[in-house]
Amino acid sequence: MSFRILGVDPGLTRCGLGVVDSGRGRGLRLVDVGVARTAPEDPLSERLRAIADEIEAWIARLEPDAVAVEQVFAQHNVRTVTGTAQVAGLAMVAASRARVPVALHTPSEVKAAVTGSGRAEKAQVQEMVRRLLELPEIPRPADAADALALAITHAWRAHAVGSVHQAAGSRQTPAQQAWAAAEAQSRTAGRTRARFPGR
Amino acid sequence: MSFRILGVDPGLTRCGLGVVDSGRGRGLRLVDVGVARTAPEDPLSERLRAIADEIEAWIARLEPDAVAVEQVFAQHNVRTVTGTAQVAGLAMVAASRARVPVALHTPSEVKAAVTGSGRAEKAQVQEMVRRLLELPEIPRPADAADALALAITHAWRAHAVGSVHQAAGSRQTPAQQAWAAAEAQSRTAGRTRARFPGR
Repeated sequence: MSFRILGVDPGLTRCGLGVVDSGRGRGLRLVDVGVARTAPEDPLSERLRAIADEIEAWIARLEPDAVAVEQVFAQHNVRTVTGTAQVAGLAMVAASRARVPVALHTPSEVKAAVTGSGRAEKAQVQEMVRRLLELPEIPRPADAADALALAITHAWRAHAVGSVHQAAGSRQTPAQQAWAAAEAQSRTAGRTRARFPGR
Repeated sequence: MSFRILGVDPGLTRCGLGVVDSGRGRGLRLVDVGVARTAPEDPLSERLRAIADEIEAWIARLEPDAVAVEQVFAQHNVRTVTGTAQVAGLAMVAASRARVPVALHTPSEVKAAVTGSGRAEKAQVQEMVRRLLELPEIPRPADAADALALAITHAWRAHAVGSVHQAAGSRQTPAQQAWAAAEAQSRTAGRTRARFPGR
């Protein structure tokens, strides 16, 4: 009983793709990680299509229960925001067409979820990804590690608010429904314990 | 013998779609015009998918020889640029998947092509669209007229540089090839005449 999340770190030259299985509690397992690359000298329409094809192939092959995409802000990196936003849009459409729920997480949400600080350095986020997934080395390039950080963030944030299960909606298998029920119960128990630490 | 162009004025709430047939010289004919709309209260991924579906349906139904998309700049309208860029990206991918060449034109290129001035007012562009396509009224909403202006711009700019034919590449029908050859000849003749006006 696990919940599978595809994290997408959108980019036109390198788009990070990372898939993580989230089990009960905070258990995590690396499923796959990689980067879709395109050549800057190719026509923009071909580059976008190649990335869209790659994201669709990952969704078809690994069948995630949710797709987590980095939220793009126009304020940051004005020069590259257009391509980044476009790739994020393609990821959302690919997920929607496969009937997989999509969530957007900001870079600070990712930092906070993985390191405990919304202002952590990139290297710290990547080291935490390595530790949490029990990997011998930090996945390279950085886009790959960032995609995994997004998937982890979604796993934990979704757990926290229970939206992993809500987001899956009618797509839940019986196993997922059972897990959702068990999780909801454990969360309630967890909160009770937190409130009355003596018990 | 005509060349069909789909113009896309990208937008998340309203995406203008306009198809024009461009004949010999500057002859133009309206084929279809419309707007893909999405509700701001719907999830972003669903809105993007709905627009992607609509653009793909237009390409499949009307089989344009080229798709002209407004070039999005991050500098303008920072607040809405993300959605606009995403829709432009979806249009490019839809065209690429249908093996239709894509061109991007800036707003000032469109103004210059249609009105003669790169700093023309929107209303002037729309009035010229109405006249050039011999329509009784300006197409509404403005996004629809803007999409037609993009298609017209592409028709004329492509003529000017001969890229209508180059862009179509191996997809040209025998009729298009014949037209391309005739056009190339007329352009050469035209240049000769322009250089030696006395002849």
